[in-house]
Amino acid sequence: MATTADRPHKTVHASTVARDTTRVQAFSDGVFAIAITLLILEIKVPRPASPSEPFSLLQSLLGLWPSYFAYVLRFVTIGIYWARHHYIFMLYQRTDYVFKLLNLLFLMWISFLPFPTDVLATYLSDSAHHDPLTQQTAVTFYAIGLFLPAASRTLMWLYASRARRLVDPRLEEGFMRRITTVYVGTVVLYASAVLVSLVDYRLGLAVCVGLTLVYLLPPRAPVYVRKSA
Amino acid sequence: MATTADRPHKTVHASTVARDTTRVQAFSDGVFAIAITLLILEIKVPRPASPSEPFSLLQSLLGLWPSYFAYVLRFVTIGIYWARHHYIFMLYQRTDYVFKLLNLLFLMWISFLPFPTDVLATYLSDSAHHDPLTQQTAVTFYAIGLFLPAASRTLMWLYASRARRLVDPRLEEGFMRRITTVYVGTVVLYASAVLVSLVDYRLGLAVCVGLTLVYLLPPRAPVYVRKSA
Amino acid sequence: MATTADRPHKTVHASTVARDTTRVQAFSDGVFAIAITLLILEIKVPRPASPSEPFSLLQSLLGLWPSYFAYVLRFVTIGIYWARHHYIFMLYQRTDYVFKLLNLLFLMWISFLPFPTDVLATYLSDSAHHDPLTQQTAVTFYAIGLFLPAASRTLMWLYASRARRLVDPRLEEGFMRRITTVYVGTVVLYASAVLVSLVDYRLGLAVCVGLTLVYLLPPRAPVYVRKSA
Amino acid sequence: MATTADRPHKTVHASTVARDTTRVQAFSDGVFAIAITLLILEIKVPRPASPSEPFSLLQSLLGLWPSYFAYVLRFVTIGIYWARHHYIFMLYQRTDYVFKLLNLLFLMWISFLPFPTDVLATYLSDSAHHDPLTQQTAVTFYAIGLFLPAASRTLMWLYASRARRLVDPRLEEGFMRRITTVYVGTVVLYASAVLVSLVDYRLGLAVCVGLTLVYLLPPRAPVYVRKSA
Repeated sequence: MATTADRPHKTVHASTVARDTTRVQAFSDGVFAIAITLLILEIKVPRPASPSEPFSLLQSLLGLWPSYFAYVLRFVTIGIYWARHHYIFMLYQRTDYVFKLLNLLFLMWISFLPFPTDVLATYLSDSAHHDPLTQQTAVTFYAIGLFLPAASRTLMWLYASRARRLVDPRLEEGFMRRITTVYVGTVVLYASAVLVSLVDYRLGLAVCVGLTLVYLLPPRAPVYVRKSA
Repeated sequence: MATTADRPHKTVHASTVARDTTRVQAFSDGVFAIAITLLILEIKVPRPASPSEPFSLLQSLLGLWPSYFAYVLRFVTIGIYWARHHYIFMLYQRTDYVFKLLNLLFLMWISFLPFPTDVLATYLSDSAHHDPLTQQTAVTFYAIGLFLPAASRTLMWLYASRARRLVDPRLEEGFMRRITTVYVGTVVLYASAVLVSLVDYRLGLAVCVGLTLVYLLPPRAPVYVRKSA
Repeated sequence: MATTADRPHKTVHASTVARDTTRVQAFSDGVFAIAITLLILEIKVPRPASPSEPFSLLQSLLGLWPSYFAYVLRFVTIGIYWARHHYIFMLYQRTDYVFKLLNLLFLMWISFLPFPTDVLATYLSDSAHHDPLTQQTAVTFYAIGLFLPAASRTLMWLYASRARRLVDPRLEEGFMRRITTVYVGTVVLYASAVLVSLVDYRLGLAVCVGLTLVYLLPPRAPVYVRKSA
Repeated sequence: MATTADRPHKTVHASTVARDTTRVQAFSDGVFAIAITLLILEIKVPRPASPSEPFSLLQSLLGLWPSYFAYVLRFVTIGIYWARHHYIFMLYQRTDYVFKLLNLLFLMWISFLPFPTDVLATYLSDSAHHDPLTQQTAVTFYAIGLFLPAASRTLMWLYASRARRLVDPRLEEGFMRRITTVYVGTVVLYASAVLVSLVDYRLGLAVCVGLTLVYLLPPRAPVYVRKSA
């Protein structure tokens, strides 16, 4: 064992580090790609129930509209999370082990997201109310599904930007504060969407849809400190 | 908050930008890889209906030919879209948020494509006409499935090449006009295939197959402006 | 055929080699991403058994808790293997054919891991004991599932660090010995978890869970030899 | 339209080209990763047929051995194709459109390979002979499944190394001839395995297994021409 005095360099070499954020993002992209693509498997080619029965392919294809709606909803929801993950990774410059575990936590919720999205798509439009709480449950579950990745994304940002400096050191302080505000604000809004949906599911859903629409807008370009400042 | 006067640089650093198109394509490649590979899951190992029944593995394997046909059709259709996506990304040099959302829209239709392709493969060869409209519906649905990614691909190109200059600035103007013509032309042809298939599904299918064959031909090499021109 | 005398260089060029570890890891990341994400497919949207029956979406969603538990367990188990694979690949600098085959062996067990994890999650909490050995079998199977990738990971490290020098030559000898100790120790502990679970499955499970918790701690930063030493 | 005289440069820029082989391989790795990982989905957690029936988890898990065998066989078969694809891509330096289409053809058969492999694993060990031809059919189908990617891989190599020079120009001529011999030889051997299995399926299978074992051996390191030669 080397003593502290003659202890060799502990710094990981620059090239290794640069490769590192790239790889964490590449792995994340893989999870995103699977989560976003996979569920086309759920839409099955319609087939007649029995050979003798009358069967209209046109009507069957049109009758699958809740599946198409679920597919598009899933793509939009996860797609926006992907685009924002992509954006924020422009700001991260290094990773460490805890950061990777937090990213895994985020990916766990992203990869879970298709499930509450499908529950919403299945029961939102359901005219046969099996239970008065069905639609409310579906919206609350969807809002929780959106809250969880937003919360872990915020955890990652707080960890990377405050406790440890994993972000690009050239980023301006005010710009970083703005991101913190946006992230924490989003978490608060999704949490309130969960609570509101317990009272009025239409309002809870409106908050979720509103946030999604806001996130379709381009994020601000990163602001860097001028070198000669 | 920084005022406009002492506002720091807003430009994202060069290395970040270069990495960016690579990553958008890497994510796209993931979606393509899943969409193209995934559906081998649909082909199940044939098993005897009951242990006592006579069972011929050879006949069962041969009887799966519509599945093989669907598999190859899917691979060719999505594969060509991949090869062209690969080609066009040689020309893109930067990305922005809207560009990424348009790419997501494109990927949404690519990942949807296996479904109309399977519908076509299932019902095109179906000798038991459940409904006089079955084959026409299958072809129209397939043509729509091909039209949607072609349309969003064209939207991406128009956005990147006109409204914003995300493309390689060294590209020659005439070459870029030619790409616009090819892209818009393809969209028009797929749209007409949709319409034609409502009248005569054989003709509509011929347009789709013809376009696929044309796209098997190599695209033109990019033409760059001479530096000393 | 060239004779030995005028035999050209056999060394692969530096750039090719650098690209090589990146690619082995990229492929591994793909397998990890699929293994970790895929099984959300197993959680199906709950639907009423028949339209006439009373159906509570809330109760159905809550009743799926063993599936959620299995999902989280799988994500944590595979996620930690991923984070550690990521870490160790910072130390590998070259690859060869045998190394790639050993990595494939490792990936074979990683991609298998969801299966014993699901078996554990299904039968651990099962109050209806179908067989007195059910829970013991589930734990033993899970411990074997964890032992196999740990063992092949150790094989890779021993091959790369001893028999052939595929690792970063700047790594300090003592640091490398420490990794060997940790890897071999983990294999021994998982092997003992397998054996212990045959006697007392609670104890065997405790060893597995304990090891997982230890692996949540960040690994030591690599220690490099000082150049001017 | 520019005339030939004032025609701008047609050469794609160096950096674009270098990125290109990387991306074709990254896409291929995605397809390999999915093909190799995906089918763990086929192994389901065993559950008692009915709650009242006696159920032994241990016996159920042991009874799944044909699934484990299929899983390992698939991993080994596809894994070796991956390792060899990886190796040969060290030699390719450029790509073109036809090359990419040939690679897609190769990937189509790789992604198909799990199917004949599963057919073999299911029926090879089947003691209940449903048909005297069952095992022969399974082996022949497996040999065809191995022949197809080998054939398209050879097509890629012949296209890249002869008709067009997409390979590293520093490669020695004799080394390239040796690869051609190995590739064409493998295709011939798999083709003969198909034919032989029609007469004696045990012999056909022996050829397939023998070739797999040979391919576990490391390939020769690439031989480059000496610069000062």
